[in-house]
Amino acid sequence: MHAYRSHTCAGLNSANVGETVRLSGWVHRVRDHGGILFIDLRDHYGITQVLADADSPALPALEKLRAETCIRIDGRVKARDAALVNPKLPTGEIEVYALSVEVLGPSDDLPLPVFGEPEYPEETRLTYRFLDLRRETLHNNMILRSNVVRSIRNRMWDQGFNEFQTPIITASSPEGARDFLVPSRLHPGKFYALPQAPQQFKQLLMVSGFDKYFQIAPCFRDEDPRADRSPTDFYQLDMEMSFVTQEDVFATVQPVITGIFEEFGKGRPVNKDWPLIAYKDALKWYGSDKPDLRNPIKMQEVSEHFKDSGFAIFANLLKQDGTEIRAIPAPKGGSRKFCDRMNAYAQSQGLPGMGYIFWREENGAMEAAGPLAKNIGPERTEAIRQQLGLGVGDAAFFLGGKPEAFEAVAGKARNVIGFELGLTDLNRFEFAWIVDFPMYEKDAETGKIDFSHNPFSMPQGGLDALNTKDPLDIYAYQYDLACNGYELISGGIRNHTPEVMFRAFEIAGYGKEEVEKRFGGMVKAFRYGAPPHGGCAAGIDRIVMLLADEQNIRQVILFPMNQRAEDLLMNAPSEPTNAQLRELNLRVIPKEA
Amino acid sequence: MHAYRSHTCAGLNSANVGETVRLSGWVHRVRDHGGILFIDLRDHYGITQVLADADSPALPALEKLRAETCIRIDGRVKARDAALVNPKLPTGEIEVYALSVEVLGPSDDLPLPVFGEPEYPEETRLTYRFLDLRRETLHNNMILRSNVVRSIRNRMWDQGFNEFQTPIITASSPEGARDFLVPSRLHPGKFYALPQAPQQFKQLLMVSGFDKYFQIAPCFRDEDPRADRSPTDFYQLDMEMSFVTQEDVFATVQPVITGIFEEFGKGRPVNKDWPLIAYKDALKWYGSDKPDLRNPIKMQEVSEHFKDSGFAIFANLLKQDGTEIRAIPAPKGGSRKFCDRMNAYAQSQGLPGMGYIFWREENGAMEAAGPLAKNIGPERTEAIRQQLGLGVGDAAFFLGGKPEAFEAVAGKARNVIGFELGLTDLNRFEFAWIVDFPMYEKDAETGKIDFSHNPFSMPQGGLDALNTKDPLDIYAYQYDLACNGYELISGGIRNHTPEVMFRAFEIAGYGKEEVEKRFGGMVKAFRYGAPPHGGCAAGIDRIVMLLADEQNIRQVILFPMNQRAEDLLMNAPSEPTNAQLRELNLRVIPKEA
Repeated sequence: MHAYRSHTCAGLNSANVGETVRLSGWVHRVRDHGGILFIDLRDHYGITQVLADADSPALPALEKLRAETCIRIDGRVKARDAALVNPKLPTGEIEVYALSVEVLGPSDDLPLPVFGEPEYPEETRLTYRFLDLRRETLHNNMILRSNVVRSIRNRMWDQGFNEFQTPIITASSPEGARDFLVPSRLHPGKFYALPQAPQQFKQLLMVSGFDKYFQIAPCFRDEDPRADRSPTDFYQLDMEMSFVTQEDVFATVQPVITGIFEEFGKGRPVNKDWPLIAYKDALKWYGSDKPDLRNPIKMQEVSEHFKDSGFAIFANLLKQDGTEIRAIPAPKGGSRKFCDRMNAYAQSQGLPGMGYIFWREENGAMEAAGPLAKNIGPERTEAIRQQLGLGVGDAAFFLGGKPEAFEAVAGKARNVIGFELGLTDLNRFEFAWIVDFPMYEKDAETGKIDFSHNPFSMPQGGLDALNTKDPLDIYAYQYDLACNGYELISGGIRNHTPEVMFRAFEIAGYGKEEVEKRFGGMVKAFRYGAPPHGGCAAGIDRIVMLLADEQNIRQVILFPMNQRAEDLLMNAPSEPTNAQLRELNLRVIPKEA
Repeated sequence: MHAYRSHTCAGLNSANVGETVRLSGWVHRVRDHGGILFIDLRDHYGITQVLADADSPALPALEKLRAETCIRIDGRVKARDAALVNPKLPTGEIEVYALSVEVLGPSDDLPLPVFGEPEYPEETRLTYRFLDLRRETLHNNMILRSNVVRSIRNRMWDQGFNEFQTPIITASSPEGARDFLVPSRLHPGKFYALPQAPQQFKQLLMVSGFDKYFQIAPCFRDEDPRADRSPTDFYQLDMEMSFVTQEDVFATVQPVITGIFEEFGKGRPVNKDWPLIAYKDALKWYGSDKPDLRNPIKMQEVSEHFKDSGFAIFANLLKQDGTEIRAIPAPKGGSRKFCDRMNAYAQSQGLPGMGYIFWREENGAMEAAGPLAKNIGPERTEAIRQQLGLGVGDAAFFLGGKPEAFEAVAGKARNVIGFELGLTDLNRFEFAWIVDFPMYEKDAETGKIDFSHNPFSMPQGGLDALNTKDPLDIYAYQYDLACNGYELISGGIRNHTPEVMFRAFEIAGYGKEEVEKRFGGMVKAFRYGAPPHGGCAAGIDRIVMLLADEQNIRQVILFPMNQRAEDLLMNAPSEPTNAQLRELNLRVIPKEA
């Protein structure tokens, strides 16, 4: 017989009754039913019930076992009594009568129980991650992640992509976030950097004549801790294609993503017809460039109804340049109690409040209620109602001012309203491409023009647009994929000629020399026949979080850092030895007292 | 029509004749046949012949194109004259008559030609890697690598393994080589390290209850440059299994490796019956723990034939402890010229030389020639011949002394002899497991006992052996896979209890405290029910090199460092900014004058 097992702990059923078997696994749970000892033996694959009574030579050893001891059991498979069959367990028809037991790996008392998954502080869970990973939730999340990555790879391969590994120890490239640096021992005083993303390498791959590239790529950013992101590294599905337009990228990505969400989404519906929403419209309609489209609420501009109206606050606001009034329709939100609660919510978010109107039936007739309705009078109120398509039992909320100042809060209010009114169907995935991002933006304080997102994107209209248009009117071939309120993918069609690249940077105030210095490798490559190309990157951690319905990124990463960027299990970071520092020609500057 | 192409450059054949098509790609080669211009247009998929004559409106633009310009052609598919059909090309039946051309990416004069792949200095090739990668050899190598990795993954998945990504920014762990360090900004004075291998994490995964893990893992070692290795990082197929013996690991690995070599080996035969060769025997028979078994020569000990013989050098040698005489049989090597050349070879390798005997026919009788034969006389010479199974036309070479002193050179001589005599069949793959590595070795100078290879391996005989045996007599459950003279895989069954681990380290002179400090995470994990486990790691770069028949590792890596660990394309490493150093609380110590 095999040294450790004849079957896994999920492998036995009634067909095996009478066989002598060998199982290995962990002591999941022990129950003592007065003379009969039941042990749930667990391995990666499942759980098998083991039992021993006074006749079993294994009983004395089994009685001494602590939870999570790793053991080997030899025993005989028995059918369970019909009443004791557990239909939820693949092995629920049988149990194994223990004949002998051997401890393979003893266990101390547990700092973190596995069975039952009681809540424990995250620091304990991270310090004993190997126990946390034995727990059902985390164990399943990791298998899910592994399966998702496998499926993504196969779907990309099936579309003719090649997977390539790009360098991890490479050059510093100020793409936005902060680099992790790696001191060079052979070149004292010089440093490598870990890539924030394989952006430059994937573009170089296209210039190298590879047509379709993808990679499940580790990305490294030295960012300040935030609850929902890993403070050191994360993974993305990185991809790039040559000789493509934006539509080609969309047509490639959509079947991969819908396929993944259908395969692993536990039956939650996935929309197939992905709308294309202009960045500007996303902000206007949803108050966000990553709208949650499970929520049917679409905001509307209603400025004209307030112009010169009796509601002085809005009427005065509208006299200023660049101001607007927007409405958040709230079907079924037509109660004073709900409206007041939402108004209070807006105040908690730093706004002066949200005006509202709600419609009720009074003596058999529809009546618009709320102070705002009184101020603007019945005609305007009715016009608003008609524009928004509302009726009895519904409400509308109003926000005014410069859109930049209230859009984000309006978006949050839209989410809360949709959620609280049960309008948002949480059990589905709703995707949309956000397109037409502005190429440039103006810094509100300095007035300086800078790239609003990715400096590598191709401006719509190309060189001609750069040379003739107001920079703030130029859109980029750049796109995000929004899903359920998250940005899942970001990408663009790239700039592929030095001429356009230099001009694009020039507008943002970067001279030729600086561009050469920052992106020397890429500029050099663009001089030798660069093909038009584009692509995108999808957040793996985020995809798995959505599929697993987890809110905390550490629930989908095997060995995550804590929020202070420390690995509590492996003890990182730690003090280097003097010899290490000497080899690297480095000295640590003592902290000031 | 699509903005860039209706077909790829490999997509057209006689079925398309008459169609108007659009192709994009690079100007591979231009030939001017007096008024007719031929352009080989190349993309990732293939080459299509484009032509233009005086009637073509595209001619003037085409005439101006530099090699490697990226262009788009609109044209009409024509059948080639029967005499001009190129059967080697998938598109060899047709050509495209150019109607218009657009330059998508202009090209400067090339620092490195693509067509014809003329030899160029490696520095130029690395500086313009994107051009080098367009060349057929490198392009195909990268596709091969990508396909090999894909196939490995699928083969592992098909055997029930899960792929997991383990941390890249992690703790320093002195496993042998030098770590790359990453300074922590949030914890001034502390450093992370890049993993030399995921050894500890894969063992932690087993303790976490995952049964079968693999990963195509980047590994980082700050090693001094050497011609045949990447100075910063390399990739390995890393795998680990729980509840397994050495035989289980072998049974898992063999079908994956043979499958890969059969799939991508271009028909070269792959041996299926992998011998298990003890480490000691490998050294004795082949002078190497990674023998090239395509070479049939097996060395033998022949000490007894030289004991008290007339060949004083060997006879005297044998009076010293631990000395041996070994023979390298050389079938068909029986000429003085060849024997002298091999003797000179041994001298060039720092040995005093190799004695030899060769057998020839003289007047119808077999005669043993060479000075050595005379010295030891006909009886001993004949006994040697019989032991080695040699005859007329064959030779044997002899080396003597302490095996450690000559084994390596003997191994090299065996290679040279096999190669020069045409005994080694270069067109095949011969695999063998090298097993029974000694657990410990004694430092020749200090006499100190230390681990001879991997400190994490389980000693054969377990704790009992550690407590009772001479450490130098203890073998480890550790194994290498040798193929054609290279080590492709290294692995072991691991130590999985703190008790055995502490004792194993104690023998090598490491106290409990130091083990806790060095491998704290793992020691901690072993206290809570660790399963027996084992695995191995296979070198991806090496596998691809063997399959592609390349000698230089940079031929199978996309963007390799040069041998001074510099990336000439991206300019790494480079000087950090003062702000970066300040953020990291680091100062660079100026080099001493």
